[in-house]
Amino acid sequence: MSDSYELLVAKLKRVHVLGTVAGLLGWDEQVNLPPDSADQRGEQMALLAELNHDAASDAGIGKLLGELENAPASLTVEQQVVVRETRRDYDRMTKLPAEFVAEKARLSSAAYHAWAEAKATSDFAAYAPFLCKHLALAKREATYLGWADRPYDYAIDKHDPGMTAARLTALFTELKAGLVPLVRAIAASPIKARTDIFRGFPVEAQRDFLREVTERLGFNYRRGRIDVSLHPFCEGSGADIRMTTRFDADNPLDSLFSSIHETGHGLYEQGLPLALQGTPLGQNAGMGIHESQSRLWENQVSRSREFWAFFEPRFREKFPAQLAAVSPEELYLAVNEVAPTLIRVDSDEVHYNLHILLRFELEQRLFADDLAVADLPVAWNALSQELLGLTPTSDRQGVLQDVHWSGGAFGYFPSYCLGNMIAAQLWFTVLKTLPGLEDDFAKGDFSRLLGWLRTNIHEQGRRYDTLALVLNVTGEELTPKYLLRYLQERYAPLYLK
Amino acid sequence: MSDSYELLVAKLKRVHVLGTVAGLLGWDEQVNLPPDSADQRGEQMALLAELNHDAASDAGIGKLLGELENAPASLTVEQQVVVRETRRDYDRMTKLPAEFVAEKARLSSAAYHAWAEAKATSDFAAYAPFLCKHLALAKREATYLGWADRPYDYAIDKHDPGMTAARLTALFTELKAGLVPLVRAIAASPIKARTDIFRGFPVEAQRDFLREVTERLGFNYRRGRIDVSLHPFCEGSGADIRMTTRFDADNPLDSLFSSIHETGHGLYEQGLPLALQGTPLGQNAGMGIHESQSRLWENQVSRSREFWAFFEPRFREKFPAQLAAVSPEELYLAVNEVAPTLIRVDSDEVHYNLHILLRFELEQRLFADDLAVADLPVAWNALSQELLGLTPTSDRQGVLQDVHWSGGAFGYFPSYCLGNMIAAQLWFTVLKTLPGLEDDFAKGDFSRLLGWLRTNIHEQGRRYDTLALVLNVTGEELTPKYLLRYLQERYAPLYLK
Repeated sequence: MSDSYELLVAKLKRVHVLGTVAGLLGWDEQVNLPPDSADQRGEQMALLAELNHDAASDAGIGKLLGELENAPASLTVEQQVVVRETRRDYDRMTKLPAEFVAEKARLSSAAYHAWAEAKATSDFAAYAPFLCKHLALAKREATYLGWADRPYDYAIDKHDPGMTAARLTALFTELKAGLVPLVRAIAASPIKARTDIFRGFPVEAQRDFLREVTERLGFNYRRGRIDVSLHPFCEGSGADIRMTTRFDADNPLDSLFSSIHETGHGLYEQGLPLALQGTPLGQNAGMGIHESQSRLWENQVSRSREFWAFFEPRFREKFPAQLAAVSPEELYLAVNEVAPTLIRVDSDEVHYNLHILLRFELEQRLFADDLAVADLPVAWNALSQELLGLTPTSDRQGVLQDVHWSGGAFGYFPSYCLGNMIAAQLWFTVLKTLPGLEDDFAKGDFSRLLGWLRTNIHEQGRRYDTLALVLNVTGEELTPKYLLRYLQERYAPLYLK
Repeated sequence: MSDSYELLVAKLKRVHVLGTVAGLLGWDEQVNLPPDSADQRGEQMALLAELNHDAASDAGIGKLLGELENAPASLTVEQQVVVRETRRDYDRMTKLPAEFVAEKARLSSAAYHAWAEAKATSDFAAYAPFLCKHLALAKREATYLGWADRPYDYAIDKHDPGMTAARLTALFTELKAGLVPLVRAIAASPIKARTDIFRGFPVEAQRDFLREVTERLGFNYRRGRIDVSLHPFCEGSGADIRMTTRFDADNPLDSLFSSIHETGHGLYEQGLPLALQGTPLGQNAGMGIHESQSRLWENQVSRSREFWAFFEPRFREKFPAQLAAVSPEELYLAVNEVAPTLIRVDSDEVHYNLHILLRFELEQRLFADDLAVADLPVAWNALSQELLGLTPTSDRQGVLQDVHWSGGAFGYFPSYCLGNMIAAQLWFTVLKTLPGLEDDFAKGDFSRLLGWLRTNIHEQGRRYDTLALVLNVTGEELTPKYLLRYLQERYAPLYLK
């Protein structure tokens, strides 16, 4: 039986290596690709997608899985996890007819360009037919793959194994109840962060500073790097992590916090067991857990007093003239700026979750046929006013702002909010577990925190689903109360004094 | 029949796309790869090599070739070229048993590391067993593939289609007869270039200057880029060309001329017919022709008075302080420095060919069993003294200096010298064909030269073999007399006045 297992692992590694090649090409496309070389990159990506699909849906994998599932006693607990999770992936891959996959890929490509153009001209009607088709395909996909309680669940489970819309509804309802009063109170506060005082920060010095910060947080630059792209992202697996950031001389905090966010993702990927790469035990546990790692480092750690106690002198050393007129409190308030915006990606962490609640509500209605695609803009704007207190003046600032739906990525947005909740719950757990942890930060030492995350999250791979992992690590079911507590404790002293 | 042809082309494009992916990974390895990520890159490259070999030796290609070869009348002249050249590639690919290919790959990997270590410690004896094995494999490879007149010819033909050792011997003998007296005379000249006066050239300004130069020569940065690596190289095919250079604040001419050399390669690849990519008509005509393009731009064009008439003011504008004490004649002499060195890659263009003659002589003796591997260092040193007037004091400066043999790349060195001869012969042809061409250079206009190369060389792809292409374009059989004339006309006025 161990022969079958070894054979299975060899096949999985092949799929994994093909995936890493495609990942590198994707990174290169956004970081290096000359402007007129996109056609060739498209051909390369298409061929790799085909090879990857062939390798991942190889009938040999199904045969080996069948053999191993019939003899579970011959497998270690770890091997059983690998078989279970590989079955999940394999079924997903093979339950979708090839024509369906091709149709979705074609539609995504066309819809992406339609979206980009519709966004530029704020013309939702031109984009609506593509969205209708994507929704129809998503419902077909749900029937191929099955769902827990309602079709939309397939899309949730896809990004966060084991999660359902019903569970999310309960979590988000409680979160909203606590969050809206806090948001309203801060909005009414006369205290405002000033970000217009950050001007003329040379890019080279910004680069040096963020390199120092991310290295100190624990990112291993011997197995990764950071470059520049239009939108920051993190790509790669354990052995070679490619992060990106962007620079604006008049917005150094954006670059810094983007980089720290991506470092959170990068630390997670660098912490996955290298020897198990290619198997589910060497893979991340889903989008929500991934986002919890980026958010924890970005928010709980790097917006803290202790973090800035250590890094503020270094920041001022790099930019003495630019920061001369900025007081320590002005700097710390700018780091924790709260200001409503229509645009999710520009949002502060207090408002951010409301952007997600809006999208989750609309996705549910779309899947339940309670809302027609044509009526999306009106529904979006109404919810925006209700949740954020702002109404978009054009669809490009509203329903057209995000790229996700143009790729058929429904059920993806909730992961962002899940990640925020998980980050806060992990945060209060680790604070209790490791006394004096925040004092470490004030000394520039993040190793105890990273070590704890390594052991409790990173090294677990895909052993547990999202909810089980949270329960295991924190000793409590996932709840929004820690996120609410964290936001209250961080922002009330700054804005509600 | 056209169906079979289309099917063949589709299969060739697949091989091509896989090759471009491997090429990009190779570029990334030398430009971006984090230091501890080499293992994963090795796995990626190995898988791509396997996929590439499978695709290129696909029995379907052999079947289609057979069909098309049986009905040549149904094919256009271009299609016949594609079938002929594809047959050449396919036979090369399929005549080698898989075990042989694997054995050579394993040996090359081991021999590379053995070479690097032996070079570091100047310990030829430790490397000799690997070289013996490579030589034995090369002889086996020759028997698999066949040869014209003697086994060594297979290695020559591999890099320069149609070329033989006998033909090279005739060419090189004539070259040597003319070159040695010129070299001796220059060595005896009291006039010496001063390169020690180039100090403190900031890298950013060097980068700007070489970008301006290479763009003006015609490199299309919308389909390519230039980055930094330890050893300069050029990688990629028409749609996406990646060049590299290196920077030394105290040696700006090295970076500039390396970049121009790679630009010559890049211009050739950018000039190959994009629509025919993947077929032999979209591929370069061999190593010698490729090198002729890099050498022509590097030497005939960019070491000329006219080139510097245009670029010297721009160079001085970028580096006013650094060049203040350097007179125009000192600058031009430095650009055309001649000084013997033991190291091929550091050699000026006058001595360069003697380094190749040395290697060609030794490779012939090795293949003819006239020389044992153990006796290589002594033979190398004797030839070095005879040709260059210098004897290595250690093998790392002699027989261990080049990486090529550690990969079993015999028959490769002669292409460098072939390239120099071809460049000079093309040069005198184009000067005759396009009157006043050098005056263009003095105005910073290189478009007539590039247009001529595009039409006569680049757009021909692999339509002709090396010698036929030279004959077609220049109206004359390949001869070393133009290289000798060029060197005489360029260097005698500088050193023998």
